[in-house]
Amino acid sequence: MEKTYIDALPLTMNSSEKQETVCIFGTGDFGRSLGLKMLQCGYFVVFGSRNPQMTNLLPNGAEVLSYSEAAKKSDIIIIAIHREHYDFLTELTEVLNGKILVDISNNLKINQYPESNAEYLAQLVPGAHVVKAFNTISAWALQSGALDASRQVFVCGNDSKAKQTVMDIVRALGLTPLDQGSLMAAKEIEKYPLQLFPMWRLPFYLSAALCIFLFFYCVVRDVIYPYVYEKKDNTFRMAISIPNRIFPITALTLLALVYLPGVIAAILQLYRGTKYRRFPDWLDHWMLCRKQLGLVALGFAFLHVLYTLVIPIRYYVRWRLGNLTATQAILKKEIPFSTSTAWLYDSYVALGILGFFLFVLLGITSLPSVSNAVNWREFRFVQSKLGYLTLILCTAHTLVYGGKKFLNPSNLKWYLPAAYVLGLIIPCIVLVIKFVLIMPCVDNTLTRIRQGWERNSKH
Amino acid sequence: MEKTYIDALPLTMNSSEKQETVCIFGTGDFGRSLGLKMLQCGYFVVFGSRNPQMTNLLPNGAEVLSYSEAAKKSDIIIIAIHREHYDFLTELTEVLNGKILVDISNNLKINQYPESNAEYLAQLVPGAHVVKAFNTISAWALQSGALDASRQVFVCGNDSKAKQTVMDIVRALGLTPLDQGSLMAAKEIEKYPLQLFPMWRLPFYLSAALCIFLFFYCVVRDVIYPYVYEKKDNTFRMAISIPNRIFPITALTLLALVYLPGVIAAILQLYRGTKYRRFPDWLDHWMLCRKQLGLVALGFAFLHVLYTLVIPIRYYVRWRLGNLTATQAILKKEIPFSTSTAWLYDSYVALGILGFFLFVLLGITSLPSVSNAVNWREFRFVQSKLGYLTLILCTAHTLVYGGKKFLNPSNLKWYLPAAYVLGLIIPCIVLVIKFVLIMPCVDNTLTRIRQGWERNSKH
Amino acid sequence: MEKTYIDALPLTMNSSEKQETVCIFGTGDFGRSLGLKMLQCGYFVVFGSRNPQMTNLLPNGAEVLSYSEAAKKSDIIIIAIHREHYDFLTELTEVLNGKILVDISNNLKINQYPESNAEYLAQLVPGAHVVKAFNTISAWALQSGALDASRQVFVCGNDSKAKQTVMDIVRALGLTPLDQGSLMAAKEIEKYPLQLFPMWRLPFYLSAALCIFLFFYCVVRDVIYPYVYEKKDNTFRMAISIPNRIFPITALTLLALVYLPGVIAAILQLYRGTKYRRFPDWLDHWMLCRKQLGLVALGFAFLHVLYTLVIPIRYYVRWRLGNLTATQAILKKEIPFSTSTAWLYDSYVALGILGFFLFVLLGITSLPSVSNAVNWREFRFVQSKLGYLTLILCTAHTLVYGGKKFLNPSNLKWYLPAAYVLGLIIPCIVLVIKFVLIMPCVDNTLTRIRQGWERNSKH
Repeated sequence: MEKTYIDALPLTMNSSEKQETVCIFGTGDFGRSLGLKMLQCGYFVVFGSRNPQMTNLLPNGAEVLSYSEAAKKSDIIIIAIHREHYDFLTELTEVLNGKILVDISNNLKINQYPESNAEYLAQLVPGAHVVKAFNTISAWALQSGALDASRQVFVCGNDSKAKQTVMDIVRALGLTPLDQGSLMAAKEIEKYPLQLFPMWRLPFYLSAALCIFLFFYCVVRDVIYPYVYEKKDNTFRMAISIPNRIFPITALTLLALVYLPGVIAAILQLYRGTKYRRFPDWLDHWMLCRKQLGLVALGFAFLHVLYTLVIPIRYYVRWRLGNLTATQAILKKEIPFSTSTAWLYDSYVALGILGFFLFVLLGITSLPSVSNAVNWREFRFVQSKLGYLTLILCTAHTLVYGGKKFLNPSNLKWYLPAAYVLGLIIPCIVLVIKFVLIMPCVDNTLTRIRQGWERNSKH
Repeated sequence: MEKTYIDALPLTMNSSEKQETVCIFGTGDFGRSLGLKMLQCGYFVVFGSRNPQMTNLLPNGAEVLSYSEAAKKSDIIIIAIHREHYDFLTELTEVLNGKILVDISNNLKINQYPESNAEYLAQLVPGAHVVKAFNTISAWALQSGALDASRQVFVCGNDSKAKQTVMDIVRALGLTPLDQGSLMAAKEIEKYPLQLFPMWRLPFYLSAALCIFLFFYCVVRDVIYPYVYEKKDNTFRMAISIPNRIFPITALTLLALVYLPGVIAAILQLYRGTKYRRFPDWLDHWMLCRKQLGLVALGFAFLHVLYTLVIPIRYYVRWRLGNLTATQAILKKEIPFSTSTAWLYDSYVALGILGFFLFVLLGITSLPSVSNAVNWREFRFVQSKLGYLTLILCTAHTLVYGGKKFLNPSNLKWYLPAAYVLGLIIPCIVLVIKFVLIMPCVDNTLTRIRQGWERNSKH
Repeated sequence: MEKTYIDALPLTMNSSEKQETVCIFGTGDFGRSLGLKMLQCGYFVVFGSRNPQMTNLLPNGAEVLSYSEAAKKSDIIIIAIHREHYDFLTELTEVLNGKILVDISNNLKINQYPESNAEYLAQLVPGAHVVKAFNTISAWALQSGALDASRQVFVCGNDSKAKQTVMDIVRALGLTPLDQGSLMAAKEIEKYPLQLFPMWRLPFYLSAALCIFLFFYCVVRDVIYPYVYEKKDNTFRMAISIPNRIFPITALTLLALVYLPGVIAAILQLYRGTKYRRFPDWLDHWMLCRKQLGLVALGFAFLHVLYTLVIPIRYYVRWRLGNLTATQAILKKEIPFSTSTAWLYDSYVALGILGFFLFVLLGITSLPSVSNAVNWREFRFVQSKLGYLTLILCTAHTLVYGGKKFLNPSNLKWYLPAAYVLGLIIPCIVLVIKFVLIMPCVDNTLTRIRQGWERNSKH
């Protein structure tokens, strides 16, 4: 065993007078990992255990004592125990009086208990200064040094001196403490590590549903229909051609869905004549995940761009163009140049590029570090003005793409219009309503409501 | 009315002993929005009003009293009143003594008053602890929960305990407080929300002017000239071909303008023989918006890349290439392969790709979160070494693009050279001067000046 | 001289009662630059000098006195002197008692001295409160205002009030202070500005070596071999074709090298039966620079994408395709369409696009501001699940690209297989081992080990 832990000796041995003692209650995985890391960073570690004889699993260099003896050795006690076993701490209230208790626990699911673990601990041992910390760090990360992820340790507590002491330990371990205020914040901090992209779920499921629906729609029109009527094997279109129809439609629809809740909210405020009433929950949730909706839309737009740019290197396209040209040469036919077709083609491509460019700009400004660097006025300008401009450009791109064949009955297959027509529905609705909302008469009322005016007030 | 505000009840009801009381002076829009939000977060809110009988507009659950009565109920008073009406507070100095006054006001324009509103408030009520906060948050955002933008609340104040109390409230409302130091910082904080991209204006106007000039230049050469001499309708070129000339030239010129001020500064320092003299204001301003200039240039370069990559899917290009090949086939002519042309073409494309790649790298390192993670030496390395390499690659890309036809008189139309020749002027000037500046004899003097040596000193 | 410094007058003149006095020891470049900046920000500056008569180099408006006299004028003394000359401070211990000493020094190389300069200073003048600050800011940046780089000033010190005072000065100069804890952090802070991308070195040298090797390999196969056997001049391939072979292989190999250390670590843990033993140093270092390896790989992938997308606008490709079509037309031959070839081509392109898309996602989530916004669980999900999916897609892309000719002996030139075969070696090894590791029987043991179980424990 000794050999195993020979590498657990302090890496940066501090001058002896500075070596602080930290006590850890509990010899589970996280306790041991944290203890090992602390030993490596020059702390002296005392473990408190129910059964101090069982020391073989602990990092070498650490002492193991009973709970009360261990607690006496240090002013800082890290509670590496599950919440269910906190009860025994009530017997130690005397020893723990005035000491700093660091609650590092996490629960298995969100809202498992009415109050946060840290607040519960503070109620159990009222004489101690409870500080919440370390719960967002994983034992595996501490051990392997693979802390690329997040070095952030959220810290909160009611006693600011205790909090400061814990933050110094956090820094000494090479992590970044973030002061989150009083112990009231513990609930949020304990919720944090249990989440898995909560705001991304709606956009994800929505886009998945859209993609699947459009995939079958396109397969019917582009693969099954020609197979039934012309016996042509078009299955290879499922690799690039069909995705390159699904992606732009999904992108455009999701982009429109970013702006739809704002438009609905405006209508609701106009109807209610006040802004001081809550929106329905679904609208609230929708509004809160607009950023995620927009970023998923940007992802699809990016895929659409790549799928479009590879068109000329595809085997199918080269084969088709080569055959066309060869036929033309064989027939000795000169194909006349149509300026109007050139205009139509070039402007639809140009609109798409400009729309995508603005879309990328919107994406960049939604990066946390960029959006923190702009003020509210600038953010509104970018997300609202540039956002609508993006939506207009992308909708125009799709409309011009359709060109003359838009809603042309000869283009229906089994009464199904081309897929891009479906993609235009929501964007056009949003743009039309928005156009109505910015008419001076409507806009004035809305502005007054948003500045606090209420229609039904006797004021 | 009651029905309207039924949803204003606390969302997260804290245990009753913790429910703090906050007083808000003023019942305007922001006061009401903040009050509603505080009620929802579990605070007890008392409004102070000139006219406490007019309560119908206020969130349910809040109390409305006269100013002095309201002030007595709480240690924290949020002043949601315009600066012009602060005078009445002088009558309340006794009640406000020792209390925390939170100044949330904004002005209509920058530098409207000689001192900041918060400092003015501190002079009016010398016995109170004035803290500046919340002025960067919009009422609409507070209300709708749409705080995607900035959750940052800048806080400053001279009393650190008062500041801490306010920061705890900020955190409880789900926002992120940022300590900006003493009340001296209030001026900056009040300026912040009024700005609209101040550093982006010069780059924006500059690039707009460049684009418009180049557009007309290209229209004359590529549309009007062939129309006059060959009666050819080339208008469709305005959608893609002409933008794809304007964008790279603008990008290259702006990129060179990023490095020009540094070169001018070096010449100025060499001429003056000291670094301890201020640069002229225009140079200072130019240097401060170099990052923005570079990012606008990157935007244009990105557009140039997209416009170039869509070339093979354009109708015009397909038509022209198809016709060429058909003619070749009809004439049964074998076109010989020219290795030198292949070299020229491929190297100009490769130079462009490498230049764009480094340009994107420069752009990424200028993201706030990335540039904060590198030290000064690394930042200098990237922005100076890699920056000049980018400029060299992009200039070489343009030069090789010109190839043999560069400054060829047959290429002039109405004595106008091709547009890309204009784009080469500034980059070449910058590169030549930089080349002179890094010659050992000049570089040594410059380095000594930058290390503090002064030519005219008797030292 | 007076004329020179006329512009050094305070920019923002504060009301006189607030004008603080700051003392700077040392009249070197950084001392003068800092003093000038402080004067401009409204501080009163007193320089302490060995030779107070030599004042001609100092900013106008500042006073110059002997060390002890200067120290008496202010509570804050900035030590702008090299560490080697700190000795004289021992004579001033009495004057310096209780004052705040700001250590701003840097060394010439990392680990030049056993203890940090700030800790050394604290030992020399035990009665003073030593604060480390400003060492990450360059004099040139202070002077020119060109602080685009980093406005961050790391501050550490044992006395929290002294630290707060220094942080207020930092803020007043327009910089951002970052509290790094106690003076123990000084060592790290002094190391920081001396680094030049320490974690990027391994990825950089590795990719450079790979690129050079692959370049010669491809030159032999694609340029020398056809020259020797067919006397064909293929040198122009060195501009685009050969780089477009080198880049994807390097990208794929580096991406696999990101996941290889994790796989080795898992094998090591399985073999040792415990997670509480350190990994060998080389493995530790490798794991720590995985992010950088991945980003370099992403750079190469990005170049590969651009080099691929320009294929259709290359002169060589246009010439070859044109000739092919012309020949086809001359021979009046119809080339039949092969659905299986279309499937192969399209699916290899689609796999590449999807792989690149996920790769870009991984890159974005490794931006500091994004990875700070996700919790450990989300980061693991993205970097591990999505990362392996990226590796699988990119490996499949390469395998399908090879298609039928993979390991076909007719494809060997001088017994050398096509370059892409080399690029498949490491990715396939990683994927095979990973596949073994996620088999339930192996995975269960590994999970138990990572949760703290030890095979050899008597527990």
